Amino acid sequence: MTCPGFRFAGVAAGIKKKGGLDVGLIAADAPAAAAAVFTGNRVKAAPVVLSAAALRAAKGKLRGVVVNSGNANACTGKAGMADAKAMAAAAAAVMGAKPGQLLVASTGVIGEPLPMDRVGAGIAAAGAALSPGGWDDFARAILTTDKRPKTATCTVRLGRENVTILGCTKGAGMIAPNMATTLTFLVTDANVAPPALARATRAAVAPSYNAIAVDGDTSTNDTLALLASGVTGGAVGGKALAAFTEALTDVCHDLATQLMRDGEGVHHVVTIEVRGAPTERAALTVARRIATSPLVKTAIAGGDPNWGRILCAAGNAGVPFDPTRVALALADVAVVAKGTVAPGYDEARAAAVMREPAYTMTLDLGAGRASARFLACDLSHEYVSINADYRS
Amino acid sequence: MTCPGFRFAGVAAGIKKKGGLDVGLIAADAPAAAAAVFTGNRVKAAPVVLSAAALRAAKGKLRGVVVNSGNANACTGKAGMADAKAMAAAAAAVMGAKPGQLLVASTGVIGEPLPMDRVGAGIAAAGAALSPGGWDDFARAILTTDKRPKTATCTVRLGRENVTILGCTKGAGMIAPNMATTLTFLVTDANVAPPALARATRAAVAPSYNAIAVDGDTSTNDTLALLASGVTGGAVGGKALAAFTEALTDVCHDLATQLMRDGEGVHHVVTIEVRGAPTERAALTVARRIATSPLVKTAIAGGDPNWGRILCAAGNAGVPFDPTRVALALADVAVVAKGTVAPGYDEARAAAVMREPAYTMTLDLGAGRASARFLACDLSHEYVSINADYRS
Repeated sequence: MTCPGFRFAGVAAGIKKKGGLDVGLIAADAPAAAAAVFTGNRVKAAPVVLSAAALRAAKGKLRGVVVNSGNANACTGKAGMADAKAMAAAAAAVMGAKPGQLLVASTGVIGEPLPMDRVGAGIAAAGAALSPGGWDDFARAILTTDKRPKTATCTVRLGRENVTILGCTKGAGMIAPNMATTLTFLVTDANVAPPALARATRAAVAPSYNAIAVDGDTSTNDTLALLASGVTGGAVGGKALAAFTEALTDVCHDLATQLMRDGEGVHHVVTIEVRGAPTERAALTVARRIATSPLVKTAIAGGDPNWGRILCAAGNAGVPFDPTRVALALADVAVVAKGTVAPGYDEARAAAVMREPAYTMTLDLGAGRASARFLACDLSHEYVSINADYRS
Repeated sequence: MTCPGFRFAGVAAGIKKKGGLDVGLIAADAPAAAAAVFTGNRVKAAPVVLSAAALRAAKGKLRGVVVNSGNANACTGKAGMADAKAMAAAAAAVMGAKPGQLLVASTGVIGEPLPMDRVGAGIAAAGAALSPGGWDDFARAILTTDKRPKTATCTVRLGRENVTILGCTKGAGMIAPNMATTLTFLVTDANVAPPALARATRAAVAPSYNAIAVDGDTSTNDTLALLASGVTGGAVGGKALAAFTEALTDVCHDLATQLMRDGEGVHHVVTIEVRGAPTERAALTVARRIATSPLVKTAIAGGDPNWGRILCAAGNAGVPFDPTRVALALADVAVVAKGTVAPGYDEARAAAVMREPAYTMTLDLGAGRASARFLACDLSHEYVSINADYRS
């Protein structure tokens, strides 16, 4: 896969203990419009702090991205910030750009200093390997405990031209030994100005990356970035911008869903749909609370249509509703009506739905017209094994 | 154990499928001052709705408590409310009281109608069994999946008199098949007026029952109630009220700690102490976030001093602090200083601390002078087995 205006590379630099590609580069041939979303955690890794500042200072025009996996450069003090800056400088050198035009991202173990000799050699090697067809290598270089690479692509017609969106993501469901990170990189050849690109990115992230949870924790390194080379077609605005935003949202939803499916110990990905809420925000709050309840997540793991746990979790969301008006369905099986067990409820059918790898749980609060969706997964023995039986 | 002014009973009425005591009564010889705290869940079981209304209508003077275990009478619609009222009426009849003078509580499976014939017979039998020495039977009658009864007692000198506080609690760590409930009942012979009793109860609950979490979910039935017969000594106020509140807090803390230790799949009870916070509320918010993070809880289960997960969870609490000023200790082992690994950090000693059944994790945010404590536990394989491998 290629995207006009960009070259990519991924190389093995010996940072990951188990080996494999661990340094990646995205290089734009010329300054590209850029937008990014960073972790909301108060404890931000050095590359996140550096990249957010660079994006602001460069007024949304960047030349590329440099990423390493195997070490998160988080909780590493002043030396960590110096290392992140050195990564930006090394990547800028191989691209003929300025250090302030680079976005830096890291993922892997935390609290350990980056092996800068290996990182530096890796960036030099990646610079030499940059090519328009290097996307798959880049997508592999960002992985840590992921079971497989996760990419998505979309072609969308904007006016007279077809533009491409390429995306890749990593994260074993936000959960991994030593804390995983969600990293997502997207490129497009569409001609979108930085302010519009920022709006499109926020709009695409809200119902995708901001509506999934494996465990509810946000890492110190989470980064999603989009570069637009603008080499194809005229300036995107109006209806074309809406179409672009919709396509970008689809790509993000595809990637976020892949991320959930690849989550450690995940056997079921469940769409929690909350309807009949007073506001969309209230619907999302209730859906998130259900999705992160350990009681609901263990019920999903066990395939147990324990509807009391779902109503209980909804009641803990802090959103006002009348419990006697609530309805719940698992796929097309009516489970709860008016706050109690539905007439003719068939538990065997409900249990059969919960044996599926993916299904929808629909809760109608009977308190309005707004709705929202959130992706949940099971809390399984594998989750505990991966995160408890492991010693750092 | 006895408490002047009260009689107690616990009988087996056949409500619990596995047998055992399942109907309990507390009877005050005369109207007693009463205070209670109920679940904050929007989905409240019928007995909670009824009891909160009764306490308000009776202006804080009640004659007793009627409890059943084995069935929560939650999500049971209008019939559930009628059943709760019938329980109050039956208990009032055996005590010679009015139905509005009774507090009703239920715990067990949800969404199933109460077997009112058995409940009625049980209340009649309990009424016949009421005695000043029936406390232990009552404490057993409220249990569901608990491994053992949990009681605490305290004698406190108020002026010239010694008064007694008896307390009992149930809940297998808030978590159980079909959703567990925390029920707590306390009696005292102290002479405390209802408004002061309500203040003392709120003060006692804040650092005890409101500072523990097994899974962060609050059930539909949670109830804590305190009755004061007032038969010993003069009206309690001023310094004596402070002493009473302190003793009550100690009893509640003892009970809450027992509840954590008896939690399903719990091997470690960890005190999360957050210091150096801007406000007490902020300290509690950070402590609660750490205590409920699945990444931290699995690290506790595995005995893994994975300090990055603890800092990450703190950073997700929404409380502002400077990560480069943070310090963390496990018992007396310094783990983190100034946001990164502490000089001379001894991981083997930190891991040894985490093998203990109880220890303290101290996080100093370096952002103020306020502090708070919260009790956390591990997220273990047993937790998942109990809650996932079970079919309702």
